[in-house]
Formats: sequence, C-alpha cells, structure tokens
Amino acid sequence: MSATQHPAPLARQALAEFVGTAGLLCAVIGSGIMGERLAGGNVALALLANTLATVFALYVLIETLGPVSGAHFNPVVTLVLMSDRGIAQDRRPLSAIVFIASQLAGAVAGAWLAHAMFGLDLLQLSGKLRDGPAQWLAEGVATAGLVFVIRRAPSGKAAALVACYIGAAYWFTASTSFANPAAVLGRLLSDSFAGIAPASAPGFVLAQCVGAWAGSQLARRLAPVSS
Amino acid sequence: MSATQHPAPLARQALAEFVGTAGLLCAVIGSGIMGERLAGGNVALALLANTLATVFALYVLIETLGPVSGAHFNPVVTLVLMSDRGIAQDRRPLSAIVFIASQLAGAVAGAWLAHAMFGLDLLQLSGKLRDGPAQWLAEGVATAGLVFVIRRAPSGKAAALVACYIGAAYWFTASTSFANPAAVLGRLLSDSFAGIAPASAPGFVLAQCVGAWAGSQLARRLAPVSS
Amino acid sequence: MSATQHPAPLARQALAEFVGTAGLLCAVIGSGIMGERLAGGNVALALLANTLATVFALYVLIETLGPVSGAHFNPVVTLVLMSDRGIAQDRRPLSAIVFIASQLAGAVAGAWLAHAMFGLDLLQLSGKLRDGPAQWLAEGVATAGLVFVIRRAPSGKAAALVACYIGAAYWFTASTSFANPAAVLGRLLSDSFAGIAPASAPGFVLAQCVGAWAGSQLARRLAPVSS
Amino acid sequence: MSATQHPAPLARQALAEFVGTAGLLCAVIGSGIMGERLAGGNVALALLANTLATVFALYVLIETLGPVSGAHFNPVVTLVLMSDRGIAQDRRPLSAIVFIASQLAGAVAGAWLAHAMFGLDLLQLSGKLRDGPAQWLAEGVATAGLVFVIRRAPSGKAAALVACYIGAAYWFTASTSFANPAAVLGRLLSDSFAGIAPASAPGFVLAQCVGAWAGSQLARRLAPVSS
Repeated sequence: MSATQHPAPLARQALAEFVGTAGLLCAVIGSGIMGERLAGGNVALALLANTLATVFALYVLIETLGPVSGAHFNPVVTLVLMSDRGIAQDRRPLSAIVFIASQLAGAVAGAWLAHAMFGLDLLQLSGKLRDGPAQWLAEGVATAGLVFVIRRAPSGKAAALVACYIGAAYWFTASTSFANPAAVLGRLLSDSFAGIAPASAPGFVLAQCVGAWAGSQLARRLAPVSS
Repeated sequence: MSATQHPAPLARQALAEFVGTAGLLCAVIGSGIMGERLAGGNVALALLANTLATVFALYVLIETLGPVSGAHFNPVVTLVLMSDRGIAQDRRPLSAIVFIASQLAGAVAGAWLAHAMFGLDLLQLSGKLRDGPAQWLAEGVATAGLVFVIRRAPSGKAAALVACYIGAAYWFTASTSFANPAAVLGRLLSDSFAGIAPASAPGFVLAQCVGAWAGSQLARRLAPVSS
Repeated sequence: MSATQHPAPLARQALAEFVGTAGLLCAVIGSGIMGERLAGGNVALALLANTLATVFALYVLIETLGPVSGAHFNPVVTLVLMSDRGIAQDRRPLSAIVFIASQLAGAVAGAWLAHAMFGLDLLQLSGKLRDGPAQWLAEGVATAGLVFVIRRAPSGKAAALVACYIGAAYWFTASTSFANPAAVLGRLLSDSFAGIAPASAPGFVLAQCVGAWAGSQLARRLAPVSS
Repeated sequence: MSATQHPAPLARQALAEFVGTAGLLCAVIGSGIMGERLAGGNVALALLANTLATVFALYVLIETLGPVSGAHFNPVVTLVLMSDRGIAQDRRPLSAIVFIASQLAGAVAGAWLAHAMFGLDLLQLSGKLRDGPAQWLAEGVATAGLVFVIRRAPSGKAAALVACYIGAAYWFTASTSFANPAAVLGRLLSDSFAGIAPASAPGFVLAQCVGAWAGSQLARRLAPVSS
C-alpha cells in the first residue's frame, strides 16, 4: 500500500488499530479469566479486578497508540469519527473499511492470546446469553455515553476520560458495558467470565449502533456555539 | 428563550445540568444495584464498587460538561457559586431556578434510567431510614467538605478533586456522603442499595444546607489576601 | 498575631494545618470504622477501603491547602522542611511550634469528629498494641520513604506522589504506615480499626524521627549537582 | 569513580537504580505478604492489594528517581534503552553493567527489607513453581508490553503509563507479569505470595528477553515517520 496520510500511513494506522484492539480484548478476557479463577465464587470481586485491568489497559493503549491512529479500537467509534474529522471526503470509505477490519482481526487475536496465556483451548464459543430489552437498553446507554465522552473530551484528556468512563459503565450499566462491536466479536469467541453467546451478539451490536447515534446527537446539542 | 450568556446560553446550560445530574444518579444507583447483586452479601464490596463507579463517573461528567455549565449537578453548589461568580446580579435568580429545576429533573431521570437498565419497576420509593444526629452531622460534614473543595480547587483540577473527595467521603462519613439535595431526590425514588426513605430526606437536605454554608465560610477564612 | 509571612500569615497557615490534619485523621479513622463495620470480618477488605479513602483524602487536602501552608499535616515533615526552606532563620522556631501545635490539635479534633459521625463515644483510648523491632523498622521505613518522596517530588506533583506513596505503604510496611506523630496522637484516641495503644506510641514516634532523618539523608545523596 | 555523565554521575545513577529496585521489590513482596495475611484465603483480594501497592509504588519511584537515572529498575529495560539513547557509544558497556548490578543488588535488598519488616527470616527460597509454555508465553507478552509502553510513552507520561500497564498485566497475563529479571531474583528469595521457585527462574528470564525484543520491534514499526 503506497498511499500515505497525515499523521501516519494507513498501513501503520491499521497496525495500531490491530494491536490496540488485540491488547484491549486480551486485557478484558485475560483479567476476566484470572478474576474468576481467584475470586472463589465472589462475582463482585472478579468484576472489580476485571474493571481495574480494563481501565488501566485502555488508558495505556489510548496514550501509546492514539498518536498513530486516533486509538478507536471500536467500529462504531470509527464510523462516528470518520463522519466529521479531518479525512479527505474521498478517502473515508477505504479508511473506515481498513480500520474496522483491523479492529475485528485484533479482537479475535486478543481473545486467542488470552486463551493461550491461560492454557485454554484457542477456539471457544461463549454460552453466556445476554438478552432482553433491559440488556439492550444498557448497551445503548453504554455506547451513547462512550461516544458522548469521546466527542466532548477536552484536548489531551481523552485517554483518561474514556478509561474512567468504561470503568464506571462496567458497574452502572446492567450489561457491563461492551459498547463495542469488536469487543462483542472477541468475547463471543471466549467461553469465560467476559463472554457473550453468539445468539446474543446481534442484539448487542444493534443497540450499540443506536446508542452511538444518540450519544453523538446529544454531544452536538451541547457543542459550543461556532461564530 | 432568546437571552444568551457567556459561556453558553441558559438553555444549553440547563441541558448540561440535566444530563450531568442524570448521569451521576444513574451511575450511583446503577452501580449500587450491580454491586449489591454481585457482592453475595458483603456490603463493603458493594460499597467499594459503588465508590469506584461514582468517582469515575463524577470525573468524566465534570470534565465533559464543566465547560458548558460549570458542572454543578447539585442545588447547594449552585446556590453557593451563584452568590459570588461572574453572573450579572439581575440574572442570578432566573439562572439559579433553571439550574436547580434541571438538576432535580435530571436526578429523577437518572434513577429511572438505572431502574430500566436493570429491569426493575421505574417507580419506587426507598424504605431505607437514614436518621438521627450522627447521620445529620455526617451529611453536614460531607457537604461542608464538598463546598470547601470546590472553592479551594486550583484551576483545572476541580474535576479530579471533587471526584476524589466524594470517593473518600463515601467511606469516612457515616452517611456515605450524599452531599446533594438532587441526589437525595433521585435516591429516595430508588428502593435499592443507594436509597434513602422519603421520611429521612428533609433532615439530610437541611444538614446539607448548613454544611454548605459552613464549608463556604471555612474556605473564605483561608482565601489568599486580596490586594 | 500581627506578624505576617509570605505566602500567608502564620495564623492562616496554622488554620490550614489544623484543618488538614483534622481532615486527614477524620478520613483515616472514619473510613477504618466504616470498613470494619461493613467488611464482615475480612480485614483485607477493610484495609482496602481504608487505603482508598486515605489516598483520596490526602490528595485533596494537599492540593487545596498546600498553597496556604505547604500542607505538612505532620510534625516530622515540618521539622525536616523548616530546616532548609524559605523561612527567615529567626522565625523558624515560632513557626515550627505553631505548625506542630496546630497539627496535634487537628489530629485530636479529626478523631473526635469521626467518632461523632459514627455515633461513638468521643473519648476513647485504643487497646491495639503495635510493638517490637519489626513494627519499629516498618515505621522507620515508612517515614523515610515519605520524607524521601516529599524532598524528591517534581514541582506540582507532590500531592499525587504523597497520596500514592501512603497508599502503597499501607500495604508494604508491616505497620500500615502511620509515618506521622500527629497520626499517632489521633489514632491512640480511637479504639477502632486504625487505633494504636498509648503504650505503643513512643516507639512509633521515635522510629518515625529516625526514619525521617534517614530519608532526608538519602534524598540529599541523590540531589542534582548544584553548579 | 571520578567519571561523570549527564544528567548525573554514574555512581549517583547506580544509587538511584539500587534504591528504586529495592523500593519496588520491597513493595511487591511486602504487600504480597500483607495481602495474603489479611485476605483470609481469598487470593483475588490478596492480588488486588498487591496490584494497588505495586502501581502506587512504581508511579512514585519512577517520578522521584527518573530524573537521576531514567528509573529503569529492570535489566532488560536497561539493555533495550542503552541500545539507542543518548549515551556515548564507548560508555555503554560500563553503564549497562553498573546499572544491572545495582538493580540486582537492590532487588535482593528489597526482598530482605520486606522480610525484616514482617518479622520473617531474611534468607528464604521460594517453593512456588511457575512453569510451562503458557506461563512463558505470559511472561513474554508481559515484557513485550512493558517495553512497548516505555518506547511509546509520550513525554512526561512514562511513570503513569508504566505503573498502569503493570497494574493491568498483573491480571491479564497468567504469570502476574514479573516482566523483570531483577524482580525474578528478588522474588525467588522470598517464600511468600509473590515468590517464584529458583527452578522456574531461567524460563521466566529467557521469556522476558524474547518478549523485550519483540516489544521493541513492534514499537519500532509504529514509530512516527522521520523526515
């Protein structure tokens, strides 16, 4: 691929999205497995460990990879941000496709890496059903909040704010806040604490898309008056 | 409403106060429900999860909404700050009324949203009595500390300081530090971990008002000498 | 008192030291009581809550009161810092006495305020013995580390670094890191989770003084070469 | 030793590496002992305490000692960084040897100091086997991530990012992320929560070296385009 963009060539951005999404899913699934193994049946303790590891990992990944690709790690974030940021109109479809493909591949790689480190079968499918209107509402709220935070984060604070937001949303949304179709893909490939049954995936992804749209609209209402 | 103010029109400030207070109460009540469900009867673990979610949510909400409305999310904070900040004398009563109404409406909306995400009845009333001089003293201290921190926070650090203060006060005040009449309203509508019985609400609000006054006085004593 | 100093008159500095030390002890003792009440016998969980509340409170108190008095809240810190900072030679003894008296009075007030909020008797004496060479070594190490951190903290980061240091030292020193003679005074007046028996106090204070001297010497060895 | 370097003479850098590695190992092992003693058999709670203490200690040590020596505290970090940073070509071998010797000596001193504070025998050997391909993979991933974070950390954020990374890696790698040959040495001398049997040490160190190389390569691929 010879085409280059500012601030980094698309191939390098794709690598950053792959590495970041793999790192995120590896942290989410790995810490879920570790938390469940050590918590002796206390789910709150397992989720607390899962929360801390996710918050720390997100913060680190966004700070270290943000300068390369913007650190989306999330297809709905890519779609929302590519609709209005400094990318030439005619390059957007290609960029979006490359970003999303990298994120999905990274999510799968991250899940498998976590399984390998814990000595589990690489190939798994989760059996944990997460269904019903309350769960879908929770995913919608979780994703709306995430997009809202990304759009409203003051310059230089996005990494800390996104990490803290997800840390809160793990607990206040009833779905533990996946808020990311790539996370859904990685987690449905893991029959562990953080998993989601394939049958529950479409409902989550649809709710995330609706939530992302709503969060973006709400952020726009609060935008500073221009001119 | 055609009147505009710096930094944002009053209608937009009202929206920010509504969204922020709703987000805060949703985080407080939602994480309380989740914590209690998962903690297997260990109240310390439930409150630990409740604390982390509240700290993270407060930090995110103040950073993202502060530039619009100042991020009060709290009627006593509005009353304290409107007594001395850059608002034209004759506009203060209207602003205060709009802010407080938005906060109270947001608190109700946040409680209901939490209930909806967890599949609970929207309309509830808490049965958890929180009464007596020790609890009232605790609420007074909690609110005094909050106002003190807001008045003394160095520029740019208010979000982190307020969030950390509330995180500490959840544990060192015997009342778990509501410190906010809007929070009292939201929580009395929730028969869950974070709730408060309606009969206990007036005592809490009165204690908060006294505490806010005391905290403001103490901060004034320590103010740098002007001129 | 008519004498004034930069950056604040001594009377105002004394108020800041009183308020800060009271706030610190109230947070330490109050969260200890709350943690023990809720933890159902799990001491690790109680200490975890105690740690979080202390870290948050220290950070907030140092940020909000540092500009007034330097936020010592600790007699050995006052003695170490007054030996080399910008205070006129002839004013040091008076300042040190006023600071230390304010800190000790604040510690007592903080302990009593915590007791009042939790509906306990104000006047108590701890029965928790903390003795022996291992405990004294731990207090020496804890205080050496604290003084080392204060002397080596880059500009503007002292609040976060001191708070984080104490959060670590609660767990890695066998004594849970009092590291402060004023804290010893406040805690010996509290027959609760965070208490210390009066008979154990002299050993702790002596170990703290030795540790403070050692930490100061170590920091000096690492100081940047001055021309 | 009369030779001097910018920013500090080598002897002072050696002291900083000794103190920092000792402080790190003392925090890791001490909080492991404390966590295990208090957690009543709940390993997740012990590891949570161990995590918090390590994150806080790392942040403090890197901030306070970084200006002197760069705050490596880790032989593989020294080897990676000395291959490309501002040290005259001919001085590198000596600096590397002095740094690594200081780190190893510090690790031993830190372990012994922790034992002394908890009233344990100074001289111990761990009996905890940590073996097999899954554990080695985990150590490789842990160290790759650490080196990646160090190489990609934006200016001024290394301390927070390294501390948060290790906090996450304690949970998402199956090995609890030693990621440091000096940590292996200190921990094999401690028959406690954080220990590792001497027989398992070579596998860990080899995996760390491979991981460090891999993390450095990955960071290079993402480096900003020069010219």
